[in-house]
Amino acid sequence: MVGGGQLARMTHEAGIPLGIRFKLLSDTPQDSAAQVVSDVVIGDYRDLATLRAFAQGCDVVTFDHEHVPAEHLRALEADGVVIRPGVEALLHAQDKGVMRERLWKAGVPCPRHRIVTDPEDVARFAEEEGDGDGYPVVLKTVRGGYDGKGVWVVRGAAEAAEPFRAGVPVLAEEMVDFARELAANVVRSPHGQAVAYPVVESIQVNGVCDTVIAPAPGLSEELSGQAQEMALKIAAELGVVGHLAVELFETRDGRLLVNELAMRPHNSGHWTQDGAVTSQFANHVRAVLDLPLGDPRPRAPWTVMTNVLGGDYPDMYAAYLHCMARDPALKIHMYGKDVKPGRKVGHVNTYGDDLADVRERGRHAADYLRGTITE
Amino acid sequence: MVGGGQLARMTHEAGIPLGIRFKLLSDTPQDSAAQVVSDVVIGDYRDLATLRAFAQGCDVVTFDHEHVPAEHLRALEADGVVIRPGVEALLHAQDKGVMRERLWKAGVPCPRHRIVTDPEDVARFAEEEGDGDGYPVVLKTVRGGYDGKGVWVVRGAAEAAEPFRAGVPVLAEEMVDFARELAANVVRSPHGQAVAYPVVESIQVNGVCDTVIAPAPGLSEELSGQAQEMALKIAAELGVVGHLAVELFETRDGRLLVNELAMRPHNSGHWTQDGAVTSQFANHVRAVLDLPLGDPRPRAPWTVMTNVLGGDYPDMYAAYLHCMARDPALKIHMYGKDVKPGRKVGHVNTYGDDLADVRERGRHAADYLRGTITE
Repeated sequence: MVGGGQLARMTHEAGIPLGIRFKLLSDTPQDSAAQVVSDVVIGDYRDLATLRAFAQGCDVVTFDHEHVPAEHLRALEADGVVIRPGVEALLHAQDKGVMRERLWKAGVPCPRHRIVTDPEDVARFAEEEGDGDGYPVVLKTVRGGYDGKGVWVVRGAAEAAEPFRAGVPVLAEEMVDFARELAANVVRSPHGQAVAYPVVESIQVNGVCDTVIAPAPGLSEELSGQAQEMALKIAAELGVVGHLAVELFETRDGRLLVNELAMRPHNSGHWTQDGAVTSQFANHVRAVLDLPLGDPRPRAPWTVMTNVLGGDYPDMYAAYLHCMARDPALKIHMYGKDVKPGRKVGHVNTYGDDLADVRERGRHAADYLRGTITE
Repeated sequence: MVGGGQLARMTHEAGIPLGIRFKLLSDTPQDSAAQVVSDVVIGDYRDLATLRAFAQGCDVVTFDHEHVPAEHLRALEADGVVIRPGVEALLHAQDKGVMRERLWKAGVPCPRHRIVTDPEDVARFAEEEGDGDGYPVVLKTVRGGYDGKGVWVVRGAAEAAEPFRAGVPVLAEEMVDFARELAANVVRSPHGQAVAYPVVESIQVNGVCDTVIAPAPGLSEELSGQAQEMALKIAAELGVVGHLAVELFETRDGRLLVNELAMRPHNSGHWTQDGAVTSQFANHVRAVLDLPLGDPRPRAPWTVMTNVLGGDYPDMYAAYLHCMARDPALKIHMYGKDVKPGRKVGHVNTYGDDLADVRERGRHAADYLRGTITE
């Protein structure tokens, strides 16, 4: 796996029981995954020679993030390295412009959008596509964004200069009047088997995922089926191998629009570690190795994932004592990262029959671990 | 953790989500746990200097097996190393003679027993303690046995020479007329918190654990409570820290007798990985670090663990394909060991509402992975 973040860490964890020999390419020995994996190569994923040396002896190469340059992926594929998902699929997770164009052509409902060239072009987009005065408009750099970074909401051409400064193409999108955000997680293997997890509700705070509720409360069977079918269709159309997260807007008038794609295990699927028969990480491993996929069904009526962000207390030991003693059924997943304010340093999963209780337990633990509450 | 076997491998796996920095002392880099752990020291656990160097920088030292010499453990404790379970407790898992004497004094029901000096003494033991002609008698070397090794069932003094050849003291025990074998698994922390898992039935084949059923079918609440209380009492009496497995005989007349003790995660607790809210491995880690313990309750009406023994086929890839495709809910746990006939190379967990079905799924997978069946 290329990339030493928490997704690689948890993928290794899921691969251990399957007897998988996991090899990691990590920036530093302190990276989240590098702390727990035996076979670690320290190197820069932006360097083709490093990638080539790393890929030696790997049956399959897969990814913790979308940042490996496409030209390097093509070079590795030309060398005969098995890359899953393959570069043609990955392009759609690396470049929001390519993704939008492809989904639009495939008839997948998306927000109205087009590539814009400068603030004046943003004004034209607002005029053509927006309601009322056309604003707000959402601007995104097509590459490199995550957790709200690389995304701006602008209310006029005067605010639209910033996104163009990075020198990366900018995509303008209508501001969708959504009721809530959902995510449809599916896993697809090279021989075409696919499984769909229950559709979840994803609650963002300041552009960062805060809480995921599985299944999405009150979602009609019809919309749930639509979301799963949409994700399975995208996986098949794009030739995705491994885990695919499709982030969706549920509009106030009951439609689904695709927001983002991720072709790797995803924050909206972390609940599966304790809430599904087979976790997204185990199924990602099974898919990229072309093993039959595991059962994606839920193990409890409700499972809630709550992200733990870094707070003002670098030492979490006292918080551990409190959280574990208060809730012996709490499932803690920490990433081994240094605590910095606002950084995702872990998550907690809770499950049970009573959604309000399950949410409260997760909320309390996450707030306590962050230091927001100290009762 | 000292020892690179599958118990260390699975303890590391369980420590990853807790953010535990796991350090391993392993005989070779190929050992089961050494394949998956980042921080591995290769060395001999029988060498005190090696142990001392390994213990540097560890908050706590715990064990994958009972074979570290007691005098080394005492030396480490004298150095100020925190060893859990401590040497005074561990002695009872290392030496069956010490264990029997201590349990007997504490009033814990055990088979009749005493240390014997030679085959003539075995004949005297049979005469004093046995029914009828006194045979069969069970002979055990007090140290070094596992999986039926170091245990003999003899039907006369003429058969009793072999156990004395190793030069290790020999314990004679009555042959218990048991209905079945049970195991009571508990975990205890330094500050005295303890949790008890449901009592399980353990089915042995040729002296090796084959199947564990959780909970033990048809076990009365009274006997189940007795078994749990007995294990909690032993843990407290002996000052055990970490996981304690108490292997029990359920006699035909409805009594419980203690067979063996193990002070570490144990084969009879592997079902907890997929069948309990908190696995034995996670709770062992929490206990030795003096963190509050996790909920030991079951997640399904029935969970069955079936051991996978090595068979005639060293390559399990084709068997993987079959087993995963046949049963998408099967939970496979492989140890990364070379396949040798009869060697424990992994286990499978199955769970559900229908015990017969849950057992059949585990049996089929284990037989298929071994190569006993190839349909």
